[in-house]
Amino acid sequence: MILFESDYLEGCHPQILDALRESNLEQTLGYGEDPHCAKAADMIRYIFEAPDAEVHFLVGGTQANATVISSLLKPYQGVVCAESGHIHVHETGAVEHTGHKVLALPARDGKISAEQILDFVQAHHSDFSREHMVQPGMVYLSLPTELGTLYTKDELLAIRQVCRDWEMPLFIDGARLGYGLEASGCDILPKDLPKIADVFYIGGTKQGALFGEAVVFSTPALAHDFRYNIKQNGGMLAKGRLLGIQFEVLFEDGLYLRAARHAVEQAFRIRDAFRAAGASFLVESPTNQQFPILANDEIARLRERFSFESWQKIDGDHAAVRFVTSWATPDANVDALVAAIGETR
Amino acid sequence: MILFESDYLEGCHPQILDALRESNLEQTLGYGEDPHCAKAADMIRYIFEAPDAEVHFLVGGTQANATVISSLLKPYQGVVCAESGHIHVHETGAVEHTGHKVLALPARDGKISAEQILDFVQAHHSDFSREHMVQPGMVYLSLPTELGTLYTKDELLAIRQVCRDWEMPLFIDGARLGYGLEASGCDILPKDLPKIADVFYIGGTKQGALFGEAVVFSTPALAHDFRYNIKQNGGMLAKGRLLGIQFEVLFEDGLYLRAARHAVEQAFRIRDAFRAAGASFLVESPTNQQFPILANDEIARLRERFSFESWQKIDGDHAAVRFVTSWATPDANVDALVAAIGETR
Amino acid sequence: MILFESDYLEGCHPQILDALRESNLEQTLGYGEDPHCAKAADMIRYIFEAPDAEVHFLVGGTQANATVISSLLKPYQGVVCAESGHIHVHETGAVEHTGHKVLALPARDGKISAEQILDFVQAHHSDFSREHMVQPGMVYLSLPTELGTLYTKDELLAIRQVCRDWEMPLFIDGARLGYGLEASGCDILPKDLPKIADVFYIGGTKQGALFGEAVVFSTPALAHDFRYNIKQNGGMLAKGRLLGIQFEVLFEDGLYLRAARHAVEQAFRIRDAFRAAGASFLVESPTNQQFPILANDEIARLRERFSFESWQKIDGDHAAVRFVTSWATPDANVDALVAAIGETR
Amino acid sequence: MILFESDYLEGCHPQILDALRESNLEQTLGYGEDPHCAKAADMIRYIFEAPDAEVHFLVGGTQANATVISSLLKPYQGVVCAESGHIHVHETGAVEHTGHKVLALPARDGKISAEQILDFVQAHHSDFSREHMVQPGMVYLSLPTELGTLYTKDELLAIRQVCRDWEMPLFIDGARLGYGLEASGCDILPKDLPKIADVFYIGGTKQGALFGEAVVFSTPALAHDFRYNIKQNGGMLAKGRLLGIQFEVLFEDGLYLRAARHAVEQAFRIRDAFRAAGASFLVESPTNQQFPILANDEIARLRERFSFESWQKIDGDHAAVRFVTSWATPDANVDALVAAIGETR
Repeated sequence: MILFESDYLEGCHPQILDALRESNLEQTLGYGEDPHCAKAADMIRYIFEAPDAEVHFLVGGTQANATVISSLLKPYQGVVCAESGHIHVHETGAVEHTGHKVLALPARDGKISAEQILDFVQAHHSDFSREHMVQPGMVYLSLPTELGTLYTKDELLAIRQVCRDWEMPLFIDGARLGYGLEASGCDILPKDLPKIADVFYIGGTKQGALFGEAVVFSTPALAHDFRYNIKQNGGMLAKGRLLGIQFEVLFEDGLYLRAARHAVEQAFRIRDAFRAAGASFLVESPTNQQFPILANDEIARLRERFSFESWQKIDGDHAAVRFVTSWATPDANVDALVAAIGETR
Repeated sequence: MILFESDYLEGCHPQILDALRESNLEQTLGYGEDPHCAKAADMIRYIFEAPDAEVHFLVGGTQANATVISSLLKPYQGVVCAESGHIHVHETGAVEHTGHKVLALPARDGKISAEQILDFVQAHHSDFSREHMVQPGMVYLSLPTELGTLYTKDELLAIRQVCRDWEMPLFIDGARLGYGLEASGCDILPKDLPKIADVFYIGGTKQGALFGEAVVFSTPALAHDFRYNIKQNGGMLAKGRLLGIQFEVLFEDGLYLRAARHAVEQAFRIRDAFRAAGASFLVESPTNQQFPILANDEIARLRERFSFESWQKIDGDHAAVRFVTSWATPDANVDALVAAIGETR
Repeated sequence: MILFESDYLEGCHPQILDALRESNLEQTLGYGEDPHCAKAADMIRYIFEAPDAEVHFLVGGTQANATVISSLLKPYQGVVCAESGHIHVHETGAVEHTGHKVLALPARDGKISAEQILDFVQAHHSDFSREHMVQPGMVYLSLPTELGTLYTKDELLAIRQVCRDWEMPLFIDGARLGYGLEASGCDILPKDLPKIADVFYIGGTKQGALFGEAVVFSTPALAHDFRYNIKQNGGMLAKGRLLGIQFEVLFEDGLYLRAARHAVEQAFRIRDAFRAAGASFLVESPTNQQFPILANDEIARLRERFSFESWQKIDGDHAAVRFVTSWATPDANVDALVAAIGETR
Repeated sequence: MILFESDYLEGCHPQILDALRESNLEQTLGYGEDPHCAKAADMIRYIFEAPDAEVHFLVGGTQANATVISSLLKPYQGVVCAESGHIHVHETGAVEHTGHKVLALPARDGKISAEQILDFVQAHHSDFSREHMVQPGMVYLSLPTELGTLYTKDELLAIRQVCRDWEMPLFIDGARLGYGLEASGCDILPKDLPKIADVFYIGGTKQGALFGEAVVFSTPALAHDFRYNIKQNGGMLAKGRLLGIQFEVLFEDGLYLRAARHAVEQAFRIRDAFRAAGASFLVESPTNQQFPILANDEIARLRERFSFESWQKIDGDHAAVRFVTSWATPDANVDALVAAIGETR
């Protein structure tokens, strides 16, 4: 059985294991106050061209999202997000668990627009009963989105403007940031992100680390006392250097983006094979997640040898499914799938 | 500089790195639903002689404590604990962050007694205004305690009885469980723990894993839907197998306890050296943490070559300090310290 | 200016003031443990034919909703509700503030159906990733709804069945319960409510009390230790008897329903006047709230003498507005409005 | 049976009932946006000489405390308070329910000192592990304390200074403020309070209102968006004018302090009678709560005709008990008690 279920099916880049072995008997202070975390933060500031950014390393995405969001909101504020946003759908209410409502807006291909956000915020503040409603306090976007789609730079700049006008921090969830930056047609560069988002995170878990997300506060004032928040939310890794070491490796010589590019290329081979076989797609995804719409019997036949996620029922005979590639996906796995796609039609 | 500051200064047992390398390209499902976690859970059930126990793997101790405690309490209940308990002092209010009060009782050498707990619970339930007070809903103990001391089996059985009589789950924080089980004079066996505690955790982070704590529900009904709680609290590791793999190694051939024994022996060498030099101790600790009371100038002199934590001011000229050994402490480090202790007196 | 903005514009039934005066110098224990609360609870059990019900008196609706809901849910559970439900829209996230997500379903005229709830719950429990999503833990309905509409008895029985099948408590918000029970065409009797809902509340604030909501647990096991929850949520009135005294008066000789009937009749006069003038309505409401759709200039003209709430923009020239009557609405106010409606067309 | 159990045993000043009756059929907007609240706020600003203060009216003390405290703290901060403070002991963990730890300091006669607070705050901020501990974020005092004692003006000014130096708001719980201001030897004037506290509340419930506490933000910036917080915490009374009307009456012609003086005088008659009979006291209280230490058989004898609270066991034969007087305590009740005290010795 070959798995295409997610981008966290394997361990990590072998270079990370090497680095862990080399550093294993070093004695360092815990909780992220070690030379590896310091160096990795420097590398991130350099690559993202954000010399003043404050960088913190957390273990996972749900933890990063809930910790960042709850640190930025006042008690009566909520976070604006697409109805398909990960925090609204797939984090077991971690944001609400910290006391805050997720203010979900209708999404199109996983995205929301500056105009939607503006309308929502204006409507709130002009409502006579606004104090009876949760105040929009920040905006959360995913880049790429949960549907593999991408905001353009212009779309992001427009959202940034609304956020600034209404004094709402903009937070970008980059669990799959690399796959986005390496997507075909992406017009966003690493250096753009700190200029767009007040805070964003660079995903490690889905991009070849064992685990770890690097939270970057481009607006450093928002990170005031953030380490208290990390600890309170159970996200402060005792052997914090493990995070530093991994991000040192990921950003050492372009590994992060190079590996992401590999995943996107493999995804395109799968996309092209389905397209050649006549399939349509739930969305046009330029990243490492592909959502072909297949007949149920075709799905069943493919499932004999491949594992992948059911995404959405389309009609009685068809469903959209999800194939995900990663930094680790070998040619052989994709070859086998492409061959099978040909057969099954 | 040689560090004796904690038991999480180094990486991990080399065997763990070997196992990570061997398994690196395996494809497994995420979130703990993989064969490694299943096998590690089986090993724990076998070693602790708890065939019905439900085992979950979390990343860190604060996370494990807050997740377990908040899953067991009703909104108006609090957790009874020693005033020196980790959840009361050193977790940035993670328990309160979930909405629950820590009900701290005066501690003696880091311990509380069955009698104290009984008095407190009885006083609550016989108070006419009890509904105006937080109801004691469970009991939290640390084994060993934050001061390196140990409860005896009889003390634990007495506390267990109070907990049963008042229908309060008993939760034991075993962040350093191995160092306790291998302590001199410890009369508790692994198989005793599931009979005493409704839920306890086996610390990995401080006992030679990169990270990870194995939460064992000996009363499986209390673990109902626990995975939802893990996810909501940001504790569900995407590549959950990393936890399974580590605990497989730790429990493979007695490594867990063997390594703990090593740490305790090293700690005793340090203890004996201080004792020989005439030092007294804050507590009599039979485990890997030692708390000698030293003159301030002696502390300053030792700090030129060794790093260790200040613990408590004793008087204008003296303070208690903490030396911690671990599975990783080499003879050479202890030799150097022992020699230095002789010199400085 | 005559106000039709809500049903809590005036003080209270004069009989309540009389009762407060008569009891003023009685000495009673606080916090609801007084003879008036006991008697009022008995009256409610009698009238609603629920001899085993547990009755608690709270001060307001948001407080009652958040306290009941948070007392019934496990940390990872949410409350299913119509997207137009008061807890989702107009309580400043009070439910989320207690850590729980509101799981909003699309509503039709303010209502959701048993089928919708069933689909949602089944989808959750059959999802492979369900532990990554908030578990539906209870259902919240408003009777009447925020749009003045009513569930039929059959609709409620169907929802009750889904709730029982999936072990989810059913909670009915009766802030305007009396206006519902006295609505034209209502087929629900007071005695039906305890058989349908596990817990519901009888609104006082909007029905002629100074304040106060009577929470009735028809399933008394769900009320275990509920007074702790009330106190923790800041809802335990020191002079609790004020609540008992008011509900004694409301249920003394049919005042509660008689006064509600008055409000509904006044609302129908307004409805009929708008209908006669050719207006259409946002919904067909059989209760004390009416939502005519009016031209903007007509709205402006009416606003010169009457105050009422804007509800929803319909198109560039029209909006739905809300007129609310109450136990206190005098004939003269409605006469004036009816006359004005005739004029303005 | 004559009750001396608390100062909220009766209804309210008759003038309040008169005012409720007079205003009963006025139509006003809800939620505190009515002329009565506006006027009462003006009166408070005038009497307390705080022209810029922002005033909000809440229903009860626990609600006021939790709402104010949670609005002022960052997630990782706690509130410093005496171990005998109401929020620590008698509010069912309402503060913790909002996610914040109560940082309890040892108290002397119900009071804490500026020096204690300074030591605690300095210790926190100089601790290497401070991020692992809850940060002190504000200070809570009760005036008078739960033991009836009073801070002097100098003590308060010293605490204020520590709070300013460390940028922690100072919040004073004035549930019994009037009884304090009218205490013998009190050197605090109403106008001093806004200069000392950033926010304080003026108790109504225990001082002759049916209910209600006036929260005064002398530092108005701290009240930003406070109405959202009130609503979210279930404290926004629909018929908010009831609060305004009551405080209008209380502050109309000195009623508030005049009635408090009456209570204190009655308390002193009780104190003097016990003193004459040879009793000692748990504390020297200059306010309306008195805590004589009595023999158990004397307590039993008094309980045949009088009801009062047990406070603290002193030894096997003696206990401290609490007698409370109020604005409503008639001479006859005190006469009867004084006579009984003479008899029973």
